[in-house]
Amino acid sequence: MGPAEKMAASAQAAARKIATLTTETKNDCLRDLADRIEKNTADIRQANAQDLNAADQNGLGEAKKKRLALSDQAVRQMADGLRQVSDLEDPVGAVTKQYDVSSGLQVRKVRCPIGVIMMIYEARPNVTVDAFALCFKSGNACILKGGREASHSNRMLADMIAATLQAHGIAPDAISLLTTSDREEIKRLLQLEQYIDLVIPRGGSSLIRFVHEHSRIPTVQHFHGVCHIFVDASADPDRAVDVCATAKTSAPSTCNAAECVLVHASVAADFVPGLVRRLSDEGVEARGDQVVCKLAPQAVPANDDDWGREFLDLVLAIRVVPDFDAAVAHINQYGSNHTDAILSTDPVNQRRFTDEVQSSCTLVNASTRFNDGFQLGLGAEIGISTSKIHAYGPMGLEELTTQRYVVQGDWQTR
Amino acid sequence: MGPAEKMAASAQAAARKIATLTTETKNDCLRDLADRIEKNTADIRQANAQDLNAADQNGLGEAKKKRLALSDQAVRQMADGLRQVSDLEDPVGAVTKQYDVSSGLQVRKVRCPIGVIMMIYEARPNVTVDAFALCFKSGNACILKGGREASHSNRMLADMIAATLQAHGIAPDAISLLTTSDREEIKRLLQLEQYIDLVIPRGGSSLIRFVHEHSRIPTVQHFHGVCHIFVDASADPDRAVDVCATAKTSAPSTCNAAECVLVHASVAADFVPGLVRRLSDEGVEARGDQVVCKLAPQAVPANDDDWGREFLDLVLAIRVVPDFDAAVAHINQYGSNHTDAILSTDPVNQRRFTDEVQSSCTLVNASTRFNDGFQLGLGAEIGISTSKIHAYGPMGLEELTTQRYVVQGDWQTR
Repeated sequence: MGPAEKMAASAQAAARKIATLTTETKNDCLRDLADRIEKNTADIRQANAQDLNAADQNGLGEAKKKRLALSDQAVRQMADGLRQVSDLEDPVGAVTKQYDVSSGLQVRKVRCPIGVIMMIYEARPNVTVDAFALCFKSGNACILKGGREASHSNRMLADMIAATLQAHGIAPDAISLLTTSDREEIKRLLQLEQYIDLVIPRGGSSLIRFVHEHSRIPTVQHFHGVCHIFVDASADPDRAVDVCATAKTSAPSTCNAAECVLVHASVAADFVPGLVRRLSDEGVEARGDQVVCKLAPQAVPANDDDWGREFLDLVLAIRVVPDFDAAVAHINQYGSNHTDAILSTDPVNQRRFTDEVQSSCTLVNASTRFNDGFQLGLGAEIGISTSKIHAYGPMGLEELTTQRYVVQGDWQTR
Repeated sequence: MGPAEKMAASAQAAARKIATLTTETKNDCLRDLADRIEKNTADIRQANAQDLNAADQNGLGEAKKKRLALSDQAVRQMADGLRQVSDLEDPVGAVTKQYDVSSGLQVRKVRCPIGVIMMIYEARPNVTVDAFALCFKSGNACILKGGREASHSNRMLADMIAATLQAHGIAPDAISLLTTSDREEIKRLLQLEQYIDLVIPRGGSSLIRFVHEHSRIPTVQHFHGVCHIFVDASADPDRAVDVCATAKTSAPSTCNAAECVLVHASVAADFVPGLVRRLSDEGVEARGDQVVCKLAPQAVPANDDDWGREFLDLVLAIRVVPDFDAAVAHINQYGSNHTDAILSTDPVNQRRFTDEVQSSCTLVNASTRFNDGFQLGLGAEIGISTSKIHAYGPMGLEELTTQRYVVQGDWQTR
């Protein structure tokens, strides 16, 4: 057994144990970890400073450095996050169906952990704590591969997690932190389907493609968000401007930010100039089709590549469509099944939109930015799945479990 | 676009349409198909005769020929199966959760089709009709790759399905039958993740391995059933003999047949001789460990390979274990997460068993043969998943859907 295989085998052994922990034990552990993290803020910030120094030396960009940095407040937020997860309902053991069948068997469908979950993510060190908390509360062991840039911070946090687990008599292998950035080592782990049950890659396209290409283990992808807003003929232009503009500006680099606004031709003259002006005022580049560019001088001409593109930046594509069907056809062709919204006061079109566009989240008269585990009431989120299998949309605790059958018989044969 | 890509793209276009069909339209279609199949029994049997002739010429084994043959009764059963699926509840559109969040958004979690499902299976031609019916009722388009041996029968059945769809104004591309047995062509299809959402391989290990190795599309595996029965110290020996023996003899080649009986040492002397005698009377070879062979002269010595082996035949492994923990450890080491049962009158051990063994189905005092969609009340079954992701255990209509979020807002921004 090589080191990768040993790590995965220990994770499986730990998973079998934590699958049967009581809710109370898990919650105690999460709250103790929160206290330990707060008490040791200085140590965490010191480790983080080492990462930030290295980032300076390696010339890391400002955006990445910002995501890497852990302020006192960020440490406190991590601890609060743990307390919030401890307050959430434990999905493990929940009976989702219960019935008797004609043979007399009493059938229950019961939520159970998936087993060992491997998560691969990039810069933010807080993900180390969040991902552990969600996996642990849902009874899973986790193998975490964070970004190399955050290695000192992640190591410090993972050590605190392991120490807390040990203090509660729980196998510290419930968390394994992978510090290698050797892609061959990661490839080896991605082959270990006998030990690892699920891989969740969270990060840029190249990371997700790498995992998809090399994994023999089932993967739930958290891929592109090419989110659309369709402004229907009946939409109030002023309110529509507000929803569309904020759906881009409030967090331009997130996966649920709007990337393209489709405008019904009959409302274009009333809506487009106001939207483009507002965008321009807020520093957003509007890339429009010919009609848009005629209606709004601040717009720049879009080219074909701008449809279906995830800008993740202060850029928004705008296209005028002749009718409802053309809007749905555009979304089906260029969308990424992530999040799409309609702004409309017509109940027929509202209904048709949510029926015909089957993205992980469709919204009526609200911003795409609401497709998020916290905003949709899941209480936590490990990511937003664009895979249709297993989980589709925001993944919280429930989505980190599966369901099995437990059957009580009375010596039935068949 | 090559032919594989064209087929997959048409299936996706069809899937978008059938995702929004009414339940009534789908049910009418299924019932009409049942009538059409019954009316054309002669044509189906003629096509089947061509397959059977070819099987004779190619020297196909008796077991395979039996699975290939369609009697009048088998045709009637196919038709009845369609009527049963039409009677099942339509999962599409079912609202599984509904709540408001603090921002005022009204959130619904709604069942929706997965999209395009590719199923790869072996000899039985009735699977063509069953798989279509389940995929169609759950709003999915399907690409079916049946066994080469059944090509005439499958073609005839797929043509009848397409004709029925067309008679109802539904895109016939809702079903595509793949008649090639060119593995390169299948590999090409398995790369088309942009069109195909799920692959379900159902068949022998080599088929499943082939798919697993070449697919870029998520796969739900229907793999080995290495099913165990643990006869605990408190089990009534006579009743236990009956459950264990029938769990092998009633259908020895099915995935839910028992392959190994584990016996608590304290009950071995009372139980093993009776079990081995009964098995021997019914033509089953008992492969036992040393204790078993001492207790029962008809048993033959098991070797190490017999633990964790799926015999799929009239062979049963029997091992005496010192205690409860050893039984669970054996199952965790050698089992396949499919189905495992405990025979015990001790409620503590019953509970511990169903907690500590997290197979897709664990049973107390009942035969492993009950892990089956019909027996567990699903009304239908496309297979039994040993993947933990998406679906675990028998897959019926619900398991052929996923869930998405549909959100009604009142012009909320974020």
